[in-house]
Amino acid sequence: MTRIVIIGGSFGGLTSAFELKRLLGNKADITLICNQDKFVFIPSLPWLSMGWRRPEDITLPLEKILRPKDIRFIHEEAKGVDAGSSKVITASQQIPYDYLVVATGPSLVFSAVPGLGPINGYTECIFELDLALRARDAWLRFLKEPGPVVVGAVQGVSCFGPAYEYVFEIDTELRRHGIRHKVQITFVTSEPYIGHFGIGGLRTSRRMMEDEFADREIKVMANQAVEEFAPDEVRLKDGTRLPFKLAMFAPPMSGVKAVSDISNPKGFIPVDQHYRHKEYKNIFSVGVAIAMAPPEPTPIPTGVPKTGYMTERMAKDAARVIASEINGRPIPETEPVGAICIMDMGDTAALMEAFPVIPPRKKAEIKAGKRYKWAKQLFEKYYLWKISRGMTNLP
Amino acid sequence: MTRIVIIGGSFGGLTSAFELKRLLGNKADITLICNQDKFVFIPSLPWLSMGWRRPEDITLPLEKILRPKDIRFIHEEAKGVDAGSSKVITASQQIPYDYLVVATGPSLVFSAVPGLGPINGYTECIFELDLALRARDAWLRFLKEPGPVVVGAVQGVSCFGPAYEYVFEIDTELRRHGIRHKVQITFVTSEPYIGHFGIGGLRTSRRMMEDEFADREIKVMANQAVEEFAPDEVRLKDGTRLPFKLAMFAPPMSGVKAVSDISNPKGFIPVDQHYRHKEYKNIFSVGVAIAMAPPEPTPIPTGVPKTGYMTERMAKDAARVIASEINGRPIPETEPVGAICIMDMGDTAALMEAFPVIPPRKKAEIKAGKRYKWAKQLFEKYYLWKISRGMTNLP
Amino acid sequence: MTRIVIIGGSFGGLTSAFELKRLLGNKADITLICNQDKFVFIPSLPWLSMGWRRPEDITLPLEKILRPKDIRFIHEEAKGVDAGSSKVITASQQIPYDYLVVATGPSLVFSAVPGLGPINGYTECIFELDLALRARDAWLRFLKEPGPVVVGAVQGVSCFGPAYEYVFEIDTELRRHGIRHKVQITFVTSEPYIGHFGIGGLRTSRRMMEDEFADREIKVMANQAVEEFAPDEVRLKDGTRLPFKLAMFAPPMSGVKAVSDISNPKGFIPVDQHYRHKEYKNIFSVGVAIAMAPPEPTPIPTGVPKTGYMTERMAKDAARVIASEINGRPIPETEPVGAICIMDMGDTAALMEAFPVIPPRKKAEIKAGKRYKWAKQLFEKYYLWKISRGMTNLP
Repeated sequence: MTRIVIIGGSFGGLTSAFELKRLLGNKADITLICNQDKFVFIPSLPWLSMGWRRPEDITLPLEKILRPKDIRFIHEEAKGVDAGSSKVITASQQIPYDYLVVATGPSLVFSAVPGLGPINGYTECIFELDLALRARDAWLRFLKEPGPVVVGAVQGVSCFGPAYEYVFEIDTELRRHGIRHKVQITFVTSEPYIGHFGIGGLRTSRRMMEDEFADREIKVMANQAVEEFAPDEVRLKDGTRLPFKLAMFAPPMSGVKAVSDISNPKGFIPVDQHYRHKEYKNIFSVGVAIAMAPPEPTPIPTGVPKTGYMTERMAKDAARVIASEINGRPIPETEPVGAICIMDMGDTAALMEAFPVIPPRKKAEIKAGKRYKWAKQLFEKYYLWKISRGMTNLP
Repeated sequence: MTRIVIIGGSFGGLTSAFELKRLLGNKADITLICNQDKFVFIPSLPWLSMGWRRPEDITLPLEKILRPKDIRFIHEEAKGVDAGSSKVITASQQIPYDYLVVATGPSLVFSAVPGLGPINGYTECIFELDLALRARDAWLRFLKEPGPVVVGAVQGVSCFGPAYEYVFEIDTELRRHGIRHKVQITFVTSEPYIGHFGIGGLRTSRRMMEDEFADREIKVMANQAVEEFAPDEVRLKDGTRLPFKLAMFAPPMSGVKAVSDISNPKGFIPVDQHYRHKEYKNIFSVGVAIAMAPPEPTPIPTGVPKTGYMTERMAKDAARVIASEINGRPIPETEPVGAICIMDMGDTAALMEAFPVIPPRKKAEIKAGKRYKWAKQLFEKYYLWKISRGMTNLP
Repeated sequence: MTRIVIIGGSFGGLTSAFELKRLLGNKADITLICNQDKFVFIPSLPWLSMGWRRPEDITLPLEKILRPKDIRFIHEEAKGVDAGSSKVITASQQIPYDYLVVATGPSLVFSAVPGLGPINGYTECIFELDLALRARDAWLRFLKEPGPVVVGAVQGVSCFGPAYEYVFEIDTELRRHGIRHKVQITFVTSEPYIGHFGIGGLRTSRRMMEDEFADREIKVMANQAVEEFAPDEVRLKDGTRLPFKLAMFAPPMSGVKAVSDISNPKGFIPVDQHYRHKEYKNIFSVGVAIAMAPPEPTPIPTGVPKTGYMTERMAKDAARVIASEINGRPIPETEPVGAICIMDMGDTAALMEAFPVIPPRKKAEIKAGKRYKWAKQLFEKYYLWKISRGMTNLP
């Protein structure tokens, strides 16, 4: 029986696990290792930080959803990968594998800019559950004593979407509270222009975002790098100083430490078009953990975002390659990864499609409307229901 | 009986006078001093300069509308204010006051740029009745022998609206005469971009104005300062030379000379949020006469416009504070001043709302349509009818 | 009987010939000299280069359409004009004239940029029938092995329209083949901004084109000059290098060599408002052959386009002047030339009107829609049917 080990219990890990189980049944012995005991529906963390969701609304216990599918769950942190002897190392054990799927997601690099982040710095972050809860508390305090808000993404960021969602939600919520006029909102980003999203824009996304920010009277500063954050001020490299009462900035990402022996210098794992490690043929990697080249260099460095949809697509494709190999069948073709996502805008939302993610594209779409807000709300429930029953989302 | 003296017979002066009378009745002895014997509905001066209005259509005799309300009218120029002894000084008399309301409006600073203005320069101006009449004559002469037109606002201007209205009216009227192709029209402004209006823009005002000027094929040069005006040429600081047959430029404004002893170095009166003089507690000031900080510094200096609506709002608020003080009641709260106005665009018009005027705002709107042109025409008649009966416009 | 000689067998030559015949009948002996034996409907060459038209769909034999109208056709190249003795010189003969109409069209200046053009360079061209056929073959080869495409107009170009049409058609055709994602398309132009078209833009043409290119995810580089073309790379003056598998660039134009003795240094013929040579009063010139000043200097040099409609208008006006002179009647007024054209956009098209072409304008319009695509297709058939019967197009 082939031993397959998966590191990571989010979109990539669960999709890999369920898909491998579906394709291989009893031919495979599947183990999932994760340092958290919960699946977190990360796309809803901005809503949680606004107080629109509670943790229990958007999490599921991993043990409970893996056990019925006969997938072993080890709730431990992976400390390293010994690719030579094909073992994953944790604090308490060494887990041998025939195939390894690395789906660890990113490590947040708050050290990229002095004063960045909520732990050793002065800015909120909504990329992880515990940080998003802190951000929610900061937001509730802020509502009682409002002041200037600065939201954005520092140099080196690849995941811009949540910063956009957050700033639109802030604007919406302040209007609902009738205190929008008490809060100057500024959006600062390393993208060369708003609507770039790290993917060179999406059709008329630039114009659409320019109009949206203008319409909401949110000031935009694009193509910016941050020098440092002070307790109540953002200091940009161009000398501009922006005072704030509340700041939320997306941090850059790197790969996690556990995979440093099999990753590139930035910690990301080099893979081929089948998501197979370029050197170690029995290691696959999917999601934020992989190295992905940006479509074009930008004046201020930026990276390519990897959304949940992309991660699931990669996990599906990688699982099929592994299963084909085990079953002795020809390796299937994989298409360059595309993406569909819905960006929340507080009182409305935007549907985006990019196939592939990196231009030139076969299909690209961006459309805004209240219907997409409803769709995003429905999708959250639907996804959680489906994954809780061991079903994957994509065909 | 409390003696209240008001300097100024336009929006601020009349609104103060009528509101104080309404609130205080016989408790107050109200005197209005004005160097003009007519109320001029200033928002219609651009129409007058096009020949669309006659002076008698948009003026009212001050004596006739003040007498029925038992408000004394002194048709003299205020020469100075002796704040120490609480007296207004004219050429013939000294008028003592318990409260003074300064609603003098601005003094036009044609000396700001060599060659600016119709008196000692080469450009028309539509900010005062007599100047607008000269502009009308110049326009009628121009129609017989057309050539290039340059319209705009020099550095230091705060009131941009009439320049926009004038350039759109010129374009409309030339099309009506079938001679648009004989006239190159250029719009030159000190705003960092068109649609800034001295208030940091209003939602999508920038895009809207860019499209409007493009659609009319009016060339735009924003973020410009003027070096000097020659008899037939505008010389910009960046070296550009624009020949003209007709030029209309908004001048900067300062406070009037009469209040120089109680004003800041630019001639504007420093007031608190109740429009009360920061030093002399029995002096209030409303409208263009007050000092108001711009929302943001601009590369080329600009100021904040003060519209008729804003002036009336200030006058109402100041009157209520004075009346409360006289009646021994608590001073009411005053909100930061907002504005509603309709900008004429010749064949259409745009409704603008900004609450407050300076961002961040609770409410902001900009919409164009023929209905707003009709509304603007109706409002002119309605306002003149109402003020002629001693009624103020705002609640 | 007055001898009238016309050089050129395209829009200008045929329209002049037919109109002079109509106005003068047997009073005139009309000879048309052309180095080609076919009339080519040049506006359809972009379609031919896509494989959407065959040569026989868009050409007519000159002999066959001129003979019924009793116009003599000489199928020879004009080698020179002896304005002193009023003779056109060909390789085999000297043809004397009382009036000469120069309607030669342009000479394409591929030498303007090293590597430009299909003969001694590496880029396709769709401005002449034989070149467009080469471009079609290159396109069909390209479809089998696609790669990056660069389309544009080098410095000094005046005729930008076909480059726009070509890039939109490329995009449309690649989508129809389902391979748009395999082709990075870049549009490089010497216009200061897209939608300038060499005429200072047309109402909101800039915004419209920016949105159109964004919507199609075609990258735009405006205000650019080309240093040189390598076999597989465009090298811009600003240092940018754009690799290509297929490149199509509009070349600059000059007048043809045959008229160099009567032209300005660039080879264009100086004419007055009646299209009469400024020096030789019995020589007229129409179409691309004439000198026409641009509306404004551009940072990178550009010229004014002369469309088929413009050429026909000039030819009509010139013919009327000649006929009036021969008939001893007063010379009619001629209006500055305007233009109507339909720009193909592959799956849609845009109607443009500019009266006059050079701003300020009496009438200007730009509108996109599928109906204009149908209109363009109908017009092609209609024009070919009409000219084949010796009828001109304009009133």
